[in-house]
Amino acid sequence: MMDCRRRLAGKQGFFPWLQQVKLSRLVIIIFVVFICIFLIVHHFLSDLSPVGESPAGHRSRLKLDHYGEDERLFTAPNLSDEIRKLSKIKASVNNELREMESKRQTLQTQISRYQMELEHLHNVKDTLEREIKLTKLNLDQLKIQKEELDEKYVPILRAPQKILLGQESGVDVSPPNTSSNCRMFSCFDYSRCSLLSGFPVYVYDLKQLRTLSSVEDFINSSVSLAFKKSPYLTSDPSKACIFIVVIGQFQEMQVVSTKDMESFLHSLPYWHGDGRNHILINMMRNYKSTDIFANVKTDRAIVVQSTFLDTIFRPKFDIVIPPALGNANGDVWQDLPLVSPIRRKYFLSFLGQYKGIIAQNSAKIEGVEKVSQDLSENNMLSSIESAIVSSLKDIKIADSNEILTQFSCDSVAPGAINGEWSMCSTEMQRKETLTQSTFSLIIAPSNISYVSSTIFQLRLYESLKYGAIPVILGEHVQLPYSEVLEWKEAVIILPKARSAEFYFLLRTYTDNNIAAMRLKGRFLFENYFSSTLKIVNSLLAILRTRLSIPAAPIHDVPSVSVFNDSFVPLALEGFEVNPETDETLGPVESPFPSMIFKENFTQFLSYQSWNKMGQVFNMFPYDAEEKILPSEAKFFGSGFGFRPIGKGWGGAGKEFSEALGGNLVREQFTIVMLTYKREQVLINALQRLKGLPFLNRVIVVWNNPTPPSALIRWPEIGVPVKVLKMEKNSLNNRFLPFSSIETEAILSIDDDAHLRHDEIVFAFRVWREERDRIVGFPGRYHAWDAQSKAWYYNANYSCELSMVLTGAAFFHKNYAYLYTHIMPQAIRDKVDEYINCEDIAMNFLVSHITRKPPMKVTSRWTFRCPGCPETLSSDIEHFTERHKCINFFVQVYGYMPLLYTQYRVDSVLFKTRLPVEKQKCFKFI
Amino acid sequence: MMDCRRRLAGKQGFFPWLQQVKLSRLVIIIFVVFICIFLIVHHFLSDLSPVGESPAGHRSRLKLDHYGEDERLFTAPNLSDEIRKLSKIKASVNNELREMESKRQTLQTQISRYQMELEHLHNVKDTLEREIKLTKLNLDQLKIQKEELDEKYVPILRAPQKILLGQESGVDVSPPNTSSNCRMFSCFDYSRCSLLSGFPVYVYDLKQLRTLSSVEDFINSSVSLAFKKSPYLTSDPSKACIFIVVIGQFQEMQVVSTKDMESFLHSLPYWHGDGRNHILINMMRNYKSTDIFANVKTDRAIVVQSTFLDTIFRPKFDIVIPPALGNANGDVWQDLPLVSPIRRKYFLSFLGQYKGIIAQNSAKIEGVEKVSQDLSENNMLSSIESAIVSSLKDIKIADSNEILTQFSCDSVAPGAINGEWSMCSTEMQRKETLTQSTFSLIIAPSNISYVSSTIFQLRLYESLKYGAIPVILGEHVQLPYSEVLEWKEAVIILPKARSAEFYFLLRTYTDNNIAAMRLKGRFLFENYFSSTLKIVNSLLAILRTRLSIPAAPIHDVPSVSVFNDSFVPLALEGFEVNPETDETLGPVESPFPSMIFKENFTQFLSYQSWNKMGQVFNMFPYDAEEKILPSEAKFFGSGFGFRPIGKGWGGAGKEFSEALGGNLVREQFTIVMLTYKREQVLINALQRLKGLPFLNRVIVVWNNPTPPSALIRWPEIGVPVKVLKMEKNSLNNRFLPFSSIETEAILSIDDDAHLRHDEIVFAFRVWREERDRIVGFPGRYHAWDAQSKAWYYNANYSCELSMVLTGAAFFHKNYAYLYTHIMPQAIRDKVDEYINCEDIAMNFLVSHITRKPPMKVTSRWTFRCPGCPETLSSDIEHFTERHKCINFFVQVYGYMPLLYTQYRVDSVLFKTRLPVEKQKCFKFI
Repeated sequence: MMDCRRRLAGKQGFFPWLQQVKLSRLVIIIFVVFICIFLIVHHFLSDLSPVGESPAGHRSRLKLDHYGEDERLFTAPNLSDEIRKLSKIKASVNNELREMESKRQTLQTQISRYQMELEHLHNVKDTLEREIKLTKLNLDQLKIQKEELDEKYVPILRAPQKILLGQESGVDVSPPNTSSNCRMFSCFDYSRCSLLSGFPVYVYDLKQLRTLSSVEDFINSSVSLAFKKSPYLTSDPSKACIFIVVIGQFQEMQVVSTKDMESFLHSLPYWHGDGRNHILINMMRNYKSTDIFANVKTDRAIVVQSTFLDTIFRPKFDIVIPPALGNANGDVWQDLPLVSPIRRKYFLSFLGQYKGIIAQNSAKIEGVEKVSQDLSENNMLSSIESAIVSSLKDIKIADSNEILTQFSCDSVAPGAINGEWSMCSTEMQRKETLTQSTFSLIIAPSNISYVSSTIFQLRLYESLKYGAIPVILGEHVQLPYSEVLEWKEAVIILPKARSAEFYFLLRTYTDNNIAAMRLKGRFLFENYFSSTLKIVNSLLAILRTRLSIPAAPIHDVPSVSVFNDSFVPLALEGFEVNPETDETLGPVESPFPSMIFKENFTQFLSYQSWNKMGQVFNMFPYDAEEKILPSEAKFFGSGFGFRPIGKGWGGAGKEFSEALGGNLVREQFTIVMLTYKREQVLINALQRLKGLPFLNRVIVVWNNPTPPSALIRWPEIGVPVKVLKMEKNSLNNRFLPFSSIETEAILSIDDDAHLRHDEIVFAFRVWREERDRIVGFPGRYHAWDAQSKAWYYNANYSCELSMVLTGAAFFHKNYAYLYTHIMPQAIRDKVDEYINCEDIAMNFLVSHITRKPPMKVTSRWTFRCPGCPETLSSDIEHFTERHKCINFFVQVYGYMPLLYTQYRVDSVLFKTRLPVEKQKCFKFI
Repeated sequence: MMDCRRRLAGKQGFFPWLQQVKLSRLVIIIFVVFICIFLIVHHFLSDLSPVGESPAGHRSRLKLDHYGEDERLFTAPNLSDEIRKLSKIKASVNNELREMESKRQTLQTQISRYQMELEHLHNVKDTLEREIKLTKLNLDQLKIQKEELDEKYVPILRAPQKILLGQESGVDVSPPNTSSNCRMFSCFDYSRCSLLSGFPVYVYDLKQLRTLSSVEDFINSSVSLAFKKSPYLTSDPSKACIFIVVIGQFQEMQVVSTKDMESFLHSLPYWHGDGRNHILINMMRNYKSTDIFANVKTDRAIVVQSTFLDTIFRPKFDIVIPPALGNANGDVWQDLPLVSPIRRKYFLSFLGQYKGIIAQNSAKIEGVEKVSQDLSENNMLSSIESAIVSSLKDIKIADSNEILTQFSCDSVAPGAINGEWSMCSTEMQRKETLTQSTFSLIIAPSNISYVSSTIFQLRLYESLKYGAIPVILGEHVQLPYSEVLEWKEAVIILPKARSAEFYFLLRTYTDNNIAAMRLKGRFLFENYFSSTLKIVNSLLAILRTRLSIPAAPIHDVPSVSVFNDSFVPLALEGFEVNPETDETLGPVESPFPSMIFKENFTQFLSYQSWNKMGQVFNMFPYDAEEKILPSEAKFFGSGFGFRPIGKGWGGAGKEFSEALGGNLVREQFTIVMLTYKREQVLINALQRLKGLPFLNRVIVVWNNPTPPSALIRWPEIGVPVKVLKMEKNSLNNRFLPFSSIETEAILSIDDDAHLRHDEIVFAFRVWREERDRIVGFPGRYHAWDAQSKAWYYNANYSCELSMVLTGAAFFHKNYAYLYTHIMPQAIRDKVDEYINCEDIAMNFLVSHITRKPPMKVTSRWTFRCPGCPETLSSDIEHFTERHKCINFFVQVYGYMPLLYTQYRVDSVLFKTRLPVEKQKCFKFI
């Protein structure tokens, strides 16, 4: 269909009227005309025929009959006279005809000359009109830009003054009367931590101090490493906002007296009498960790540890951290079980042995760790515990196969406090149980003098790690980082009084919600629990969040040009661009960047970032989920950057093409094009981009060890083209967050992908509404094979898709940061191993973060690759690798993050019949 | 385009090959053929011509010349012989031709008879094949359903046992040693509040008791009213979970001694010595409210008030509520200012006068309310306050026009505690200031013995009400309901130490985030602050949330049939349905409902519901934002209800039509059709629904005072048709949440809207992916007129749309509940006033809740209305009303909630060229 239309458009000079007529009617008309002319001519000629040897056919048959009856006419006698007369007449007529013919020829020549002139004039007029239109638009744009610049003036304030908290900083003062009521406002010196300070952190090097004890080896080395990697580290204590003292976990067998501890603290060089802004870290590596600050006067210092006595812990001041049982740093997906099946072998499991006396029910005295206790208190406690045990036993009787409970251990793991359930067995055996449990019961210590105990933290850590959803009986315990994390989305907390009912409550949870909680638990574990580095970073992030200081910005990848500074590339000028359409697709604008870091001090966003992958530890320049302004606000003083369609009146055709519209301010996009050893293909691709509206810049990722030939002529396409040198040839380079990408929107295209301008502009408009998705053209999906129990990459025609290939797709620059800096390294390695699958990896990442499928836009496009010398995707090997990639990525994420979608997106009036005077949004899509 | 194709298809018998050829080529071919034939015929005929009187033209001129030269041929003598011979031959040829013609006719007749027979047989075969296919599908469905029923068995547990908290309930026990450490687990008796109890609330009638004082009149009456409306109220104290005692605010001038208060509490009939599960409410009506429990031993009772001493307030136990300054109940949108402009006249405002001594800076002694104070303490406090004042003065100097600060009042509002900034002027004057302020500064009392003061609560209340974003300096204050509300999204809280920096921080907030915070503040105010009813409901909801007890379910509207129980409607049988397509669009299923109330005990959802309009006070049977299971889970034991396409392999055509696919379990939809006085139109509409896949039921809303004629014959369409009687003729009836709607998906269609089955099925599939949006066919938008500064309803062709009319649209049943029970009454009244705009109201509601635009699906549809007797939308009046509606609704919501979208949704392979052997998703869309 489109072929036809294009061909007709090409012949405009010959049949201009053809364009007005619908093709269908044309066919009919031509037929009718053909038949009429045929008949008329035939009739006319036949009338003159002496004998009717016309072609067979029933119409002509009638004629034959007619002539058959009139044949006597030709048998007359004076034939030669007649012929002579006729000859004369013929000759005169012949002469007349010759004259007329020459006249006719002259006229025709004149007419065609006039026509040519007319056509030329018409073209000139068209060009002029278009230029005037563009210039006018340009002028409008400039006017608006100027107005905006005038308005944009926001007073830039000088750096804030520092005010002090009653004392001069750097001067020794006495500690507060009672440190037990310490809160940030009463014990922390904000004057050291101005909003623009960048959160400088000073870490005491304990080796240089007279230390009271030595820190456990792993803790010592891994914590040091973690701080060394921190962007906040400062070596200048006079500028530091906080002072870190790593005090524990102690080496084996070490005990430090209260007095020693206090004198150690007071001797710290920057303690200044009250320990303000000091962070005392006691990191837990194993069950031997305890609250080492029991009875110690820590003054204004913030205490950070896993085990806390009720008397030591000051809410919203001290911080509970999880045990550092993992590696120093690195990914941990290999240690984690898969998310599915959602319901595991055991619905609920609990293994433990009570340390203390369980009264009433059984007078059993736990042998291994006998302790003396105030009996009256213990009776009260143990009656609750025994009620829990008896209701668990009831449940077990009702649902024997799905419940795994055990109230005494073959071997008891040490570390429990008095009045707490010890853990059983070794970690390996517990892992065995937990990976088979849907829910894992954790009974908080009945000894409420602890707000957090070693065993409680170990149980929580292991449950999260092995995907058994923690069900905590006992409301008084403090969960790690509870000030910032949405624990309710990963654990269930109930008072012990609900011990007879909690099983009923668990049974009401749907598979969907169990899966959501397990995934949330996995997220929390991977991001905030899994390594010493993560724990240290989380701790710093909590303090930073409290202080409203933004995080250090995430790294852009430097943009290194393939050309020397002195080298001036040859320019290709005057090349012909086939515009493919004479549509105006957008206003003429000069390139402008997206605004960056505009929300870095916005409080509620910094709290929300705790629920987003990798966003707590790094400040991203943009937010893909920006809040939308009310529709009317742009007409009431918040119009900066808005381009409402028809100035608010809406519209199609001209009005639509002149303004971006939508719910967000105007913006542009950057094209990132990966190229490898096919220079002519690249140059052709660049040429096609000339005049593309909303294009900010083109980044060519030169994925080739040798720089481009100096002889290449680079086309001038109206926006800068940056050709960037890569350190190695990697498909991951496609997603590097280059510093020279200055827009939120990235259009990633293969050099051989031929997208038309209207397709690109439409996809860009759609992406602006779906900024957190991949919005693009070629759809693919993941198929499940029940036989082999494996996923397959599938490129067949299908009505569901779950991936959009990044050979032609828009995505947000944030995903480039996440792909490069936050996504597990194993995925990038796999991409390099196969030299394949980078597009699959990006689809996994985005669906994992958003839990949304990608979006496919209208399919009016064709992959053209004129003379590609090397294509990656031609062989079967390519597909086999992609199957393997999918299944490998599922291992890394622990589940299949891709989601299906059954629809495609088109422009609003696409294929809609309109009245003649109305215009569409796009002519062809 | 479609015209052309359809017309060609109609002529299939004549030109079947035409369909195979591209039209473009056709035109060319026809031209070439035309010219060739013309030339051949002409040449042939011309050769026979004796004289060349052919039409003018340069080709024929050449012929003339030719004959001119050869004219001697016709001067031969034996011409008559020649002619005779030719005549004979001609006659014989003529005869031959006649015979052949008659033979040809006979053959043609035979051929057409055979063709007819063949066609008939072909049809019969098709019908049989389709039936076989349907039967097979039916069988498959039944098998799967049976398997699922087997699997579905989840053990239903008996109601939970009650365990006690150490004491027998109903027996007097001594109070806890120290009530200051009361927490739910230590002071609350859960045994009275089992999960299935339904949260029974007993309210003491103080009139029947010897009361210690009388409660302020408005508080007394409005609180009584609120409890009377509560679904949780019980009159049986023996079954009650909690006991409510409304103690304050006292009548003017009343003071109650500590001793009187304690003896009053102990005398309460169900106090049982420790006041367990008692809720003591002291509601604040004006500045005279104080913490009436100072020094009172409240034992295990939960204290609820606005003003709290630090010594009284027990975190996570006692509850801070906002002042009850509003009406007893009802909507408050009329009192609230509009959201835009986002940036108001004053960027920041603060009006106040310090109560206490400000040292150092000025030794001014505040005259009106002079107080004596411990001077040493006061010096310390006031140095912070004076630092705040001086930094505010600095800011004022830098940005004089945008800052409104005033540190002494012309008239001081009473009620401030010592060490707090009093409010100035009257409420009207403060309203004047706040409605013109973007941010409103609230300085927390420097007297930290209060965690919440009367004036602080009043300032917060007024700021929220008038849309000035509260900026709270001072971290130690308790905000109302802080345990459940996300306050960070509506207020900015900073320590006083940041007083020199907070202005810089505020300046970094973008318009988008300011708007988001103002809207959030408005949401919190309307839902939890605005009336005594809302405050009482919020209080009960907090307690209920703590106890994990689900809310009372929201009301379904009873479905009353228009027919008497005894009446049997006449059935229309054997009617012809034009299937419009022979496509199979879905499997044959028996009707089944969506699952309800499956998440009512899921803890994290009950906390999340505090951020959703109206969802805290009512339990909804469904959640439109259900969590999605990982893609692989359905193959690992969570497959219940899933219908993967091609059993996991995906596909198009047959595989697609046989299974719903997607990321969620299968489901069905209910059609709701409003009808009014046009019975034949209705019956026709019902007939068209026969055989529609995934249809669960049809609800006909009989919007007519007279019941339908008993003579109407109702078509049997394979699913139940319920005709419901309405109390009054109202367009709001379209959105009533009828009890007989048993699916989440509702398809609302006008009786005269003609949607094809494939369009409906496709839209249903899209809705399943976008469950929180309106997904439908006719798009409209809101246009802004800069001249009149007003919104206009716009039905023009446009490339942006913001509404989808509910005359043909899918939406979630939750929105029917919200429209009917939660949306402000004024909107429903306006709909009834104009008998118009109900569809606009629904679009406003959904966009307000989701902040997303609706979704338009493919436009291949036509509004047909055969013989509509009464149409509402024909006149100009109709449009004028709709303009008015839009502008009125904006007043109610305070902003324009509609959002634009620039795309439309089509089926994946729509208009895609496919290889011949491949099938599409839908044949025509």
